[in-house]
Amino acid sequence: MLIVQKYGGTSVANTGRIRAVAERVVRTAEEGNEVVVVVSAMSGETDKLISLAHEVSSNPNEREMDLLLSSGERITSALTAIAIEELGHKAMAFTGRQMGIITDTVHTRARIEKIACQRAEKALSEGYILVIAGFQGVTENEEVTTLGRGGSDLSAVAIASALNAAMCEIYTDVDGVYTTDPNIVPEARKLDKISFEEMLELASLGAKVLQTRSVEFAMKYEVPVVVRSSFNENRGTLVTKEDEDMEKVVVSGVAYDKNQTKITVMGVPDQPGIAAKLFKRIADANIVVDMIVQNVSSDGKSADISFTVPKTDSKEALKLTEAIAGDMEAKGVSQSEDIAKISIVGVGMRTHSGVAAQMFETLAKHGINIIMISTSEIKVSCIINLKYTELAVRVLHDVFELSETG
Amino acid sequence: MLIVQKYGGTSVANTGRIRAVAERVVRTAEEGNEVVVVVSAMSGETDKLISLAHEVSSNPNEREMDLLLSSGERITSALTAIAIEELGHKAMAFTGRQMGIITDTVHTRARIEKIACQRAEKALSEGYILVIAGFQGVTENEEVTTLGRGGSDLSAVAIASALNAAMCEIYTDVDGVYTTDPNIVPEARKLDKISFEEMLELASLGAKVLQTRSVEFAMKYEVPVVVRSSFNENRGTLVTKEDEDMEKVVVSGVAYDKNQTKITVMGVPDQPGIAAKLFKRIADANIVVDMIVQNVSSDGKSADISFTVPKTDSKEALKLTEAIAGDMEAKGVSQSEDIAKISIVGVGMRTHSGVAAQMFETLAKHGINIIMISTSEIKVSCIINLKYTELAVRVLHDVFELSETG
Repeated sequence: MLIVQKYGGTSVANTGRIRAVAERVVRTAEEGNEVVVVVSAMSGETDKLISLAHEVSSNPNEREMDLLLSSGERITSALTAIAIEELGHKAMAFTGRQMGIITDTVHTRARIEKIACQRAEKALSEGYILVIAGFQGVTENEEVTTLGRGGSDLSAVAIASALNAAMCEIYTDVDGVYTTDPNIVPEARKLDKISFEEMLELASLGAKVLQTRSVEFAMKYEVPVVVRSSFNENRGTLVTKEDEDMEKVVVSGVAYDKNQTKITVMGVPDQPGIAAKLFKRIADANIVVDMIVQNVSSDGKSADISFTVPKTDSKEALKLTEAIAGDMEAKGVSQSEDIAKISIVGVGMRTHSGVAAQMFETLAKHGINIIMISTSEIKVSCIINLKYTELAVRVLHDVFELSETG
Repeated sequence: MLIVQKYGGTSVANTGRIRAVAERVVRTAEEGNEVVVVVSAMSGETDKLISLAHEVSSNPNEREMDLLLSSGERITSALTAIAIEELGHKAMAFTGRQMGIITDTVHTRARIEKIACQRAEKALSEGYILVIAGFQGVTENEEVTTLGRGGSDLSAVAIASALNAAMCEIYTDVDGVYTTDPNIVPEARKLDKISFEEMLELASLGAKVLQTRSVEFAMKYEVPVVVRSSFNENRGTLVTKEDEDMEKVVVSGVAYDKNQTKITVMGVPDQPGIAAKLFKRIADANIVVDMIVQNVSSDGKSADISFTVPKTDSKEALKLTEAIAGDMEAKGVSQSEDIAKISIVGVGMRTHSGVAAQMFETLAKHGINIIMISTSEIKVSCIINLKYTELAVRVLHDVFELSETG
């Protein structure tokens, strides 16, 4: 069968690691598979190139940044192909362009529009192992683009989809997806299987195993993804379509995110369209708002609106909010950085009631105040005080019995 | 006017140097010129990439090597374009492919077949300063190729020719072309002007200022080339078509080359076709033979054939020669590494007699034995004992009065 294997930066950090990757690739090929490898830049390379650019400019042009940053993956792809050939297999390195990855024209965060993979298919049929430079593509006008942080995951999933691969293996430096961060809960359990929807929630909640867009893509095109370590032979976690087994598990994981800031607009006149105006302006500035809560005040004439944004955008969001608050004659704007988001995720929630209540109770029992709440079909998130993050993760992991063998 | 400026590895060795290059480029543009910049990899980068490849393979595939090595120039081109933009000018980095440099399919030493420069011309007409990654091109099948050591010089000259540039400036870490190596003769004088033919002889004789093929190309398409330093404002040396001034100078420079090995086949039966057979076999192995001398021995029945090859090829050449010597029943083969080639070069030799004689006399006067002699219209070369190299350079530089202001 055809297998796409993606190796991240730590998996190709040096030539010793690249040789180990080549051995794994060759083993997969010798088991009778066709193999397409997607590689990231050697760890640290992309950051090194970014700092070189900042040494010559405070605000480097994005077109040139893409040309610069795409070099890291080209280097790894060539070295990996050379290492595979050294083991006696035919291998060929492809740039994003040679792989036929056509993107839109948005530099530094381009979207893949199509993959013209005739050339790759021809090389595969001739017995080559292909090694593709991840993270990059070209526009119709042959400008080099990159796909944003973690974009090599997306390259791998999109290539797997285009080539109708049986599976996309994402090799990283962890064994798979865990019920929570093992640094906080040493008893955290590796999941054998997780649904796309759950993975998507976990990815967007700050569990950095897979890039969010790559999960969306895998879900849309139903590409089975396996997350596993390139440093051992453990089986990893299969990310796939929801099945009956998964539904029996109420909560699959506990995630946290310390990268949020809360902004509150106090005393907003209670008129239709006020919230819409605020959030449109923030969206126009390309700032993604996560949670939103609105409370009408006791006198019924005004409301408080609270919302969270990523810490990196908090300055700009605050500035915009203050301007709009002035326009709408609100009473004031406040900001809090001392918050964290704690979430429980699980497709079983759809068919089990009382999960949210159990979460709130557990937090209350340990003296953790809930500042904001947001729910979806398969997730409950609470904003709490930052200092309780680790405690909250531990008690929730415990109450939903995630440590036990599932 | 349109000026092509090529900056070598030491000129773009770090971001400080790249900023200095950007300033020079912008100054040239602000004097009213259109500027196309060609850059090498930052010094040391190409060697670093080569050693990475050798860490994963003893014999890396040339196709993959080209993909790997072309990355160095891409990085410099992006950084240089960013640095120029930081100074408030419109700049655009181009890869070899984006510049339309189409080569043959011989990886690691491809030849430029044509330059499709419509895209570059359009960008120039829109007011962009272009920064081209040197040393690279693509085949018709979109495979990445490189042009061999020093290939960025060739990129620059070929681009200057394709764009009908008024001039191609080659920036390096020396002030220009000297009458000889200033490390040996401190009084060596920088030449203001030199003919293509002389430069070609000097380049192929081991004066490493310009890559030989780039000089051939410049001569063929009559591209005026200026060699100058990026570390100061000195005027440099103009390499151009021969003119009357140049003919007045009998000897323009003294060159030496310590990178040759002499191989002698003794007692070769004096039959037609023997030498042809020997040198065909050596040429088939892609070894370039430099000087050849054949002496019929005193008995008139056999001959000694001596020739020189680059030291890097000496092992293989010796092996081939020994095999052929066996076939042709020669008496033996000997080899000497202890030699150097000393040459005087000058277009004035065409119209001045006695130059060779003066060279031989001078060497003899200082006790330097001549082992082989080879002459062309504008050059006399002698193979001498290696240990006399510096002495020979000094006495010839002196006798042809090269130190004095021309």
